[in-house]
Amino acid sequence: MTGDVPAEISRLKLETVLYALSDPVRLHIVQNLAEKGELACYAAVVGLDIAKSTQSHHYRILREAGLIVQRKEGVCFISTLCRAGIDARFPGLLDAVLRNIQSTRQDPVPACSEALP
Amino acid sequence: MTGDVPAEISRLKLETVLYALSDPVRLHIVQNLAEKGELACYAAVVGLDIAKSTQSHHYRILREAGLIVQRKEGVCFISTLCRAGIDARFPGLLDAVLRNIQSTRQDPVPACSEALP
Repeated sequence: MTGDVPAEISRLKLETVLYALSDPVRLHIVQNLAEKGELACYAAVVGLDIAKSTQSHHYRILREAGLIVQRKEGVCFISTLCRAGIDARFPGLLDAVLRNIQSTRQDPVPACSEALP
Repeated sequence: MTGDVPAEISRLKLETVLYALSDPVRLHIVQNLAEKGELACYAAVVGLDIAKSTQSHHYRILREAGLIVQRKEGVCFISTLCRAGIDARFPGLLDAVLRNIQSTRQDPVPACSEALP
């Protein structure tokens, strides 16, 4: 499923993708998925002290933006970065963000940077 | 003042810049400033039907993210994109976003995509 291109890729919006990336927890998840291919949800947030409901919130935003897809395996959800789809729709964007995450990583990642809806 | 590098450039955060760019009105302003150098505030939002208080809200987010600087000239505020500073702190990021704005521009820009605080 790695690099899957969602059917509605042409409907993805730049501002929605940028919003999904505008949070340190979600940047952490996206970077982990970019480095490791696919990961169980809990594995992509290892090291971050965040509640399960907050994790779900972040994964939903990433999923709805078209950045990740998820599938169920037993009791786990496995997440995959939709690298090919995002690269096709917004060439160079994800590369530029991933290259620049490191400079942000020097700062501690807060437990939750936004209120849950 | 074009391309000014704010003194605190090294403190700019990737997620804050991405959040500032995650709105169609703010993308419109940033693209206009990138194309035309500097613009009076009202000129950068020409064609968008948005209230003055909403404009101020968007300019504040862009300013606080370090994307623009503003100076007063008579009764106007003139905005300038901090291209050099953002490029120095996050190489390639603004280029990638600007290149991809066009695909979003096909959609109508809403009057206001988020609630005012």
